[in-house]
This record gives sequence, C-alpha cells and structure tokens, in this order.
Amino acid sequence: MKTFAPRGTTEQIEEGRVFAPKFDADGLIPAIVADAWSGEVLMLAWMNDAALAKSIETCEAWFYSRSRGALWKKGETSGHVLRILEMRVDCDQDALLLRVEQAAPGTCHTGRASCFYRAVSLREPAGHTLVLQFKKAERVFDPAAVYGEPKKTEEQA
Amino acid sequence: MKTFAPRGTTEQIEEGRVFAPKFDADGLIPAIVADAWSGEVLMLAWMNDAALAKSIETCEAWFYSRSRGALWKKGETSGHVLRILEMRVDCDQDALLLRVEQAAPGTCHTGRASCFYRAVSLREPAGHTLVLQFKKAERVFDPAAVYGEPKKTEEQA
Repeated sequence: MKTFAPRGTTEQIEEGRVFAPKFDADGLIPAIVADAWSGEVLMLAWMNDAALAKSIETCEAWFYSRSRGALWKKGETSGHVLRILEMRVDCDQDALLLRVEQAAPGTCHTGRASCFYRAVSLREPAGHTLVLQFKKAERVFDPAAVYGEPKKTEEQA
Repeated sequence: MKTFAPRGTTEQIEEGRVFAPKFDADGLIPAIVADAWSGEVLMLAWMNDAALAKSIETCEAWFYSRSRGALWKKGETSGHVLRILEMRVDCDQDALLLRVEQAAPGTCHTGRASCFYRAVSLREPAGHTLVLQFKKAERVFDPAAVYGEPKKTEEQA
C-alpha cells in the first residue's frame, strides 16, 4: 500500500485539496525548515515516505539520511528536536516547507543557529575561486559537548 | 575546466572560505528562494553549474528546468525577475538560499505570491488521504495574462 495519495492531473496537483507528494527517483522529497517565529531558514533536509509519515503523525521532524541510508529524528542525539507547527507543500507538490519551533538555540550540527551561515560573493565571473563570507556564524551551542567527539557528519541528529 | 572549486575536506567545506558547491548525480543543487524583505520562502528550484555561474555573475536568478532539460531565467517570459541581494550556502555546501527582491508581486506560476500556498494536515496517521488547506492563496497576478494560454508547467519563467 502506498502511504500517500497517487499523483493526479496537473490541475488536481496544483489546485486540489489532496496531498499527493512527489518523491524523486531515490524516493526523497526536499524539506525546507524555517523557524516559525523569526521566519529564518534553518536547514534543508530530505524525507522519504516513512520520514514524512512520521513527521506528520508526531509533529516532530524526521528525515532520511542519504549518507547513512537511514531514517533519523532531528534531536535524537542532541535533544534539539524540531516541533512542526505548520507544514506547507508547493504548487507541484515536490517540495515541503516546515515551520518549526526549536527546542534549542541552534539547528546546525556545527553549533550555529542556521546551516546558512556563509554568503557567496556575487558579481564575480565564472571560473574564479569564489570567497565565502561568514554571517551570523557565532556558535550558539558547543557541538563537541552536544554530539561528543569525534565530529559527526552534517546529518547528525 | 570546472566552474567552481573542487570539494575539500569536511573541515574545509564546513569552516572554510572557499565556495565549493556540491552538485548531485544529475549535476544539480537545490536553491531555496526567500523574499529579502519579508523573509517569506517563495519557491524551491534547481541550478546546474551554468545556472549558478550566471546567477552569481548577473545577480538575477537563473535555474535549470528538469522537465525541459534547459537553463531558464526566472522572469524571461513574465518579467517577474528575481534580483539576488544575497546568496547563502549551507554547512556542507549542497544547498543554496537566495534572498531576493521581486520585480512583481508574485513568484508562483499559478499567480500566488509564494509556491507554498497550501498546508498539510498534521497529527494524521499514515495511509489515509491527507487534506490540504489553502493559505494566503489569493492570486496576486493573472497567470493567463502573464504567460498566455495554454497553461504552462510549474517551471514556467
């Protein structure tokens, strides 16, 4: 049995009231995570159908780790659970937006509030090495204390 | 010649000042688009290396259409260009966040301000058909007038 409704016509997908998420060839759908209160984009992660079903049922964010090939709950190790206040789907139902309440000050495994702590140089010609600028990159928690050593991957929960 | 710097160690990728974006097996990287002024998440689209290079050079958003297999500039048809005020990259450099100024009130090809105009029911068990609720779903422009008939795909520029 499929977990979610089958895809319909373009009209049904875009203007309908049935949730019919599109998973890619690897069975995954991208989920943007934004802080419900500030609106700040915190991270982008991936869900398979089981992660999406668990997220909807529990209102806590579950994802699928592509590197580990496993379901993971954000906050399982760190306690930094993401409580889902709202889940949105886009026009063609192949991307999700989660508005979350954070149980801790930071979401990024590096200890920052958001994973998007560096800006790319703009107005640069292609083919040059582009420089990143750190923005709001102070650590709001100590990843070594939270996750222990050695340093874990980006998909550390 | 590669357009962007090669990937380094995890430490270099996460804590370094060199932009070394990771493209997936199809040569694509996801780009979240948010309004620079309101912070609202508008859409998720994909870039290949050429789209990313053009976006950086011109400060206007270029994407890669997976359905059409072609580079496209947002606003090419509609005039709804997205001017990039800031581009962020995440910890592992496999996702982008564009903070943009919109040349028109709406970004979604359906005429809405954002592509994320429907919310998914939460606290529902898996296996049921889930209902979507329309949120801020009024049209801010007429897609037929902007794009003409017949209705175009979700990746209409």
